Formats: sequence, structure tokens, C-alpha cells
Amino acid sequence: MTDLENSLTTIIEVFHKYSEKEGDKHKLKKSELKDLINNELSGFLGHVKDQATMDSLMESLDTDGDSECDFQEFMTFITMATICCHDFFEHHEDE
Amino acid sequence: MTDLENSLTTIIEVFHKYSEKEGDKHKLKKSELKDLINNELSGFLGHVKDQATMDSLMESLDTDGDSECDFQEFMTFITMATICCHDFFEHHEDE
Repeated sequence: MTDLENSLTTIIEVFHKYSEKEGDKHKLKKSELKDLINNELSGFLGHVKDQATMDSLMESLDTDGDSECDFQEFMTFITMATICCHDFFEHHEDE
Repeated sequence: MTDLENSLTTIIEVFHKYSEKEGDKHKLKKSELKDLINNELSGFLGHVKDQATMDSLMESLDTDGDSECDFQEFMTFITMATICCHDFFEHHEDE
């Protein structure tokens, strides 16, 4: 596999590592998403401590209104995080 | 960096490796996107040989109508590819 193919596989594996912990194994509940962010993305996004941030994030991602985050909704989150990270690098590069 | 953070960084790096080859260094032209798919994603998506497929793909990704693929439009493509790949693994797992 190429580096890019490995990266897409890693995204899928990380989603499942957390989604299968509790309840519906194919969806992230709010606490699973919070653990995923704090353990796997804190270098990019910082730690999420307050409940209001998680409530607001889940509300914005949960397009089908089931109060959980399925893989498609998770990819929206990954896209947002990657675009923020890309914009940061672009800006940094211009300085 | 965690594996997930490395994966997001790889997506950004691969985009720039191809976008900076010709013309606007921050956008993929059709030939750059085609090379990226054939060199970096052929294990998942197969090789793209015909022009009609590339025309149609670029048309569906190019939401701002400038005939090129910027990073946000590229993330739509990565999301589509990852969801297809995820659906394949899910289906395979159930068998």
C-alpha cells in the first residue's frame, strides 16, 4: 500500500477502535468521540475538557439526528480537522 | 504525532506533491489529479485511463467552477474514497 492508502486505512481503523467500545459498534457516542480526540488528535486540536464543546461538536456532526457519529459524519469531522491543519501550514509557509 | 495525525499530514503532503508540479501550486489540475490517483491510490481505486472518467470526476469535485481541484475539493474526494473503502471492509467483515 502507498502512504496515502495507509493513511485512509488508519482513519478507518481509528474510528472502529473507538466506535466498538460501547453501544452501537458502528457509531461513536459522545464519550467515544471525546476519547478519540483527546487520545489521537490532541497534538492538532488540543484537549477537549468541557461538556459544552462536545455537545456542540456532536450537534454539528450528527446530521441524521441519532445523537451518535457514524463513519460518514466522522469523515466530515476529519475533513474539517485536515482543512484547519492545511490552512495552518499554508499560513505558516507564507511567513 | 499519533498515527491519525500522521495520516492527516500525509494527505496534505500528497496533495502538495502533485499540486505544485504545474500552474497554480495550491490546486490540482486534471492531469495532476490523474497522476495522483494512478500513483497513490490505484490499489484502492484502480487506474484511471480514459479522459471521460477524469472529466466527470473533475466536474463533480470542482464546486467553485475554476476547472481545478483545491484542497477543500480534494478533501471531498478523499472522503468519498475513504467511505467507499470503509463500506468495502464493513461488507467484507459481515461475510
